Amino acid sequence: MTVHVAAMDIRERLARNLRLLRQEKGWSQEAFADEAGLHRTYISDLERGARNPTITVVDKLAIALGVTPGRLLD
Amino acid sequence: MTVHVAAMDIRERLARNLRLLRQEKGWSQEAFADEAGLHRTYISDLERGARNPTITVVDKLAIALGVTPGRLLD
Repeated sequence: MTVHVAAMDIRERLARNLRLLRQEKGWSQEAFADEAGLHRTYISDLERGARNPTITVVDKLAIALGVTPGRLLD
Repeated sequence: MTVHVAAMDIRERLARNLRLLRQEKGWSQEAFADEAGLHRTYISDLERGARNPTITVVDKLAIALGVTPGRLLD
């Protein structure tokens, strides 16, 4: 079994991409939470890499930001 | 709040992409499970769209297949 350590953990990549895309839209975390149908504190946790969300949550985030899930995770 | 219904649910997209990429490698579900460090029945459930995995699981699947997470979810 080959073991890779991703250069940046996927949670950190999601955190960085969420923050960048949200700020590009000029949204507060609260506005983004409303748009995505999630709680503001959950958005804050995601942007600190402190959560391990499921793919259906990632899909909600991507739809709210108008990007593909890959744009958030790659 | 804008509500989108993704053309194909993200779990179905993952299921279709996993099956295609695994078969391209000529792997059985068991061989893929070993490569990804997951259980065979879990791989079977994923390929039926019956699971809602977290992003760290998606990362394991992507690393095992040598693709980006976006290739599995977009």
